[in-house]
Amino acid sequence: MKKGQLLYEGKAKKLYATDEEQVIWAEYLDQATALNGARKDEIKGKGELNNQITSEIFLYLSDKGIENHFIEKLSKTEQLIKKVEVIPLEVVVRNLAAGSFSKRLGITEGTVLPEPILEFYYKEDALDDPFINEAHIAFLKIAAPEEIRLIKEAAEKVNQELIRLFQQIGLELVDFKIEFGRQADGTILLADEISPDTCRLWEKESGASMDKDNYRKQLGDLVPVYREVLQRLTKISV
Amino acid sequence: MKKGQLLYEGKAKKLYATDEEQVIWAEYLDQATALNGARKDEIKGKGELNNQITSEIFLYLSDKGIENHFIEKLSKTEQLIKKVEVIPLEVVVRNLAAGSFSKRLGITEGTVLPEPILEFYYKEDALDDPFINEAHIAFLKIAAPEEIRLIKEAAEKVNQELIRLFQQIGLELVDFKIEFGRQADGTILLADEISPDTCRLWEKESGASMDKDNYRKQLGDLVPVYREVLQRLTKISV
Repeated sequence: MKKGQLLYEGKAKKLYATDEEQVIWAEYLDQATALNGARKDEIKGKGELNNQITSEIFLYLSDKGIENHFIEKLSKTEQLIKKVEVIPLEVVVRNLAAGSFSKRLGITEGTVLPEPILEFYYKEDALDDPFINEAHIAFLKIAAPEEIRLIKEAAEKVNQELIRLFQQIGLELVDFKIEFGRQADGTILLADEISPDTCRLWEKESGASMDKDNYRKQLGDLVPVYREVLQRLTKISV
Repeated sequence: MKKGQLLYEGKAKKLYATDEEQVIWAEYLDQATALNGARKDEIKGKGELNNQITSEIFLYLSDKGIENHFIEKLSKTEQLIKKVEVIPLEVVVRNLAAGSFSKRLGITEGTVLPEPILEFYYKEDALDDPFINEAHIAFLKIAAPEEIRLIKEAAEKVNQELIRLFQQIGLELVDFKIEFGRQADGTILLADEISPDTCRLWEKESGASMDKDNYRKQLGDLVPVYREVLQRLTKISV
């Protein structure tokens, strides 16, 4: 496989073409952002940790029958993924109240939600990724109703499997954000990344944040925390 | 019917008990608020205009087979309504893009929506009435799924009838907010008020705002505008 031209540079990744039309070469960057990019820092080692964590998680999900865009890890910071047309939707699943959910609805952080709560956000930096409903999704032509049905079904399945995975390594899955894409044949595929950048993870014993909240809330250095998550994940996957 | 003790004083109305358990005496106040009550002004004559407009509209909806809480108009500023337990939900229906919808989603004001868009807001002043989805409604126990189904159905029907009504008096129904309540037997009933305080109305010919936007945007005096809406409504109802 040959790395081709740069197709996209985002906050956390660069994407390159390859000599295969349907394959993308992803490179994870040492960058952290918060407040929709208003705060930005280089964090040495973050790229390789997220690349490795995401790889572990996508392999795990594949193993559980959840199709996704991951093909293989190439190096510490690089992976091959299937090419998709990104659906501009952030799909958030919540198991415990935290973050914006707690603030908007006045619910104490840590409150257990009797049923997982799913939210859609319109992935549009210029609008600060607004929270939307399914009528907005239809109006904005973000996805067809049948696609939304499949996305909701997949998000629930991902949630069940991730809860189990993190349970095994002593972490509570508070909430997470996933994204989906369309393949050339129109089928929907779980895409983007799944890492402590996109999941809110609390250590069961201590309650400590094992995720990007360390950066968002300036609690401390991300790298040792992300390394700990990776080490625990690697142990169980052996 | 005898007016009893004061039960509730809101931004725009006072509600009193009557000698009949299931009947409430509503008095419309000369008060306008914006920004969730942060701006507040006395506007002489507004109470009687809204009381009369709401009465006309609820009578019209009853005539079209849409059950609601309105019983009868008592005086210029007073009406009798059925007692309901208010469901803390603002149900917004949009036919054209305007206001917060335009801002949040970056859609030019006046854009025609191919399908009416329904939104739910959690009626909770302390939280600034946040926009919510149906999973939030379930979690907050605001209403049961079957109640939400009925509310959505009723909101669509109200929209169709109001579009026709305002069409007849040269006004475009851009969007509106309605509220529902539960009667003692648990049945859902359209409640609150329907007036230029709760509807965004644009004059078809001039495009002028014939609603509370005159106050929100400080365009001018509300009273002559509301009086014009009432006069047009009264003409067709005769």
